Amino acid sequence: MAERIGNSTIFLNNRPSITGYGSVVGKTEREGPLGDEFDRFDIDIRFGEKTFERAESRIQKIAVETALKKAGISEKDCDVIFAGDLLNQCIGSTFGLKDKNIPYVGIYGACSTMALGLSLASVFVDCGIAKNAVAVTSSHFCSAERQYRFPLEYGALRTPTSQRTVTGSGAAVLSLQGDKPYINSVTFGKIVDRGVCDANNMGAAMAPSAADTIKEYFYDTNTSPEDYDIIITGDLGFVGTKLLYELLLKDDIDIRCKHNDCGQMIYDKNLRDVNAGGSGCGCSAVVLNSYIMHRFENRDFNNILFMSTGALLSPTSALQGESIPGITHLLNIRNPE
Amino acid sequence: MAERIGNSTIFLNNRPSITGYGSVVGKTEREGPLGDEFDRFDIDIRFGEKTFERAESRIQKIAVETALKKAGISEKDCDVIFAGDLLNQCIGSTFGLKDKNIPYVGIYGACSTMALGLSLASVFVDCGIAKNAVAVTSSHFCSAERQYRFPLEYGALRTPTSQRTVTGSGAAVLSLQGDKPYINSVTFGKIVDRGVCDANNMGAAMAPSAADTIKEYFYDTNTSPEDYDIIITGDLGFVGTKLLYELLLKDDIDIRCKHNDCGQMIYDKNLRDVNAGGSGCGCSAVVLNSYIMHRFENRDFNNILFMSTGALLSPTSALQGESIPGITHLLNIRNPE
Repeated sequence: MAERIGNSTIFLNNRPSITGYGSVVGKTEREGPLGDEFDRFDIDIRFGEKTFERAESRIQKIAVETALKKAGISEKDCDVIFAGDLLNQCIGSTFGLKDKNIPYVGIYGACSTMALGLSLASVFVDCGIAKNAVAVTSSHFCSAERQYRFPLEYGALRTPTSQRTVTGSGAAVLSLQGDKPYINSVTFGKIVDRGVCDANNMGAAMAPSAADTIKEYFYDTNTSPEDYDIIITGDLGFVGTKLLYELLLKDDIDIRCKHNDCGQMIYDKNLRDVNAGGSGCGCSAVVLNSYIMHRFENRDFNNILFMSTGALLSPTSALQGESIPGITHLLNIRNPE
Repeated sequence: MAERIGNSTIFLNNRPSITGYGSVVGKTEREGPLGDEFDRFDIDIRFGEKTFERAESRIQKIAVETALKKAGISEKDCDVIFAGDLLNQCIGSTFGLKDKNIPYVGIYGACSTMALGLSLASVFVDCGIAKNAVAVTSSHFCSAERQYRFPLEYGALRTPTSQRTVTGSGAAVLSLQGDKPYINSVTFGKIVDRGVCDANNMGAAMAPSAADTIKEYFYDTNTSPEDYDIIITGDLGFVGTKLLYELLLKDDIDIRCKHNDCGQMIYDKNLRDVNAGGSGCGCSAVVLNSYIMHRFENRDFNNILFMSTGALLSPTSALQGESIPGITHLLNIRNPE
């Protein structure tokens, strides 16, 4: 039975477990340091589809099907799916999953979507509302660039603080099962706004919320970085990570020896246009549902914190001069003893 | 303790109750047949703000504050808030709630958002994960028109099947408390796509999903329309309602004597430009959190079905020739004996 501890942390006492997971990426992600970890990739950035948006829907569909296959269940065994993405009105998820015939909960957390969906799915399984629940998200470099910045055909240059949107989708199946990595607790973050207005520096916009959620979690659980094998953030990239360290050190919390960031891990740093690292809903989704799960399987990881970070802006809000609020959701994932 | 019955319906045995609710509308909604039911309105379509988007954020904030006040609790008593809207990247909710300091779960269900958020909040309260949970959504005629259709300055005419986006926000506070209307069950809908492609006929796009969810609910619970005081749909409008009747009659389900639709109820039918009725996330949100709650209080209603219907399209998907999938979530709301 789930129970709330402290301000924001919910302990899941029935051990909802990740029984299946799937990851699909594009060519650039496949060529990065984690390339061999991913289930599927395609050298065609459109994944055989007519538009970038359809391509994004297609990789969500494949990620879910891969995760279900690994979990050994079919669509009709799923009681609920939590899905969302960066596209306006979340059409990546809608069109990717519309034929799945699974009760559908649409979510929006920008790049925090993987942790958000995984948290909700864990809660539903822990409380016995769902026997099997799925969480999925995606992003696509080309659909994101033209929606948030410029049509690719312009060949616009980006600033050194900007991040490259990951082309990829990750899906996880949650079920009650004894011998798989399980979600020990979830912490839903608050919106944090420190007035950052630079839409080309998402890392800076998200770092304060990451600091806020991790401090809340350490306070709620009376633990410290030393208690975990690793603390993995979603897509702060190189700039945001540095800021997160600075913010936490002000409160005497030092995660530097224990931390890595999916946005730093996914690309070859020497690649042109990667700038401050990877970003997008797909970034932490594909790293969780490949590299991280593999490390749990070989027991390199047994007790970790996984946090996805989101920047809650739109091109309209940016053009209207609004700040960029951030949000970060956190999960404590553990291996059974 | 929540438990799943049948395929999709979740019974909430601890009676999560609507302990507070708030509604804010614009001038046109105030002048409609339900005008006196709403808590707040403003003759200024910008609600004192600089932009339509800021206005939408502002009414969400006021709706939440009104609901909290009626529930007799403060922000710090809230364990979680579920919020979403129609604007790209849900900025109506982000900027309306960013200073609220409440753990935030962003959701996206298009015009089904009120039922979606209310369902999730009910589950969280029923399972003891949240003591108090809030669900809120909004829409704004002007921010929606320029995002989905044309800038208002064009003075574009709309088709007779099109609906007018409601300017309004509704919020509800869910808590465990014995003497208020409570959520007896929730049914999360599936995405239903019947190939409707006319973005000026949302009612037709959403009706099949409404039919699907209500049939699923009747099947799960072995009940029929006669068992309820009223069945209220979100914003099918006049066209969608007619289609819903036709679709259900094919399965020998006749809801005609028991049904009303928020999109039909909210505007003066003789008003120019209302066409097929009201729509938008705010439509079912403001009707639930005013008229419907008042009818529970005077015991005109004691056992109802409340369904919000959403059309999962974006301008991009429409321009790319995609169909318009629909989704409908359903709640059974009851008065304590």
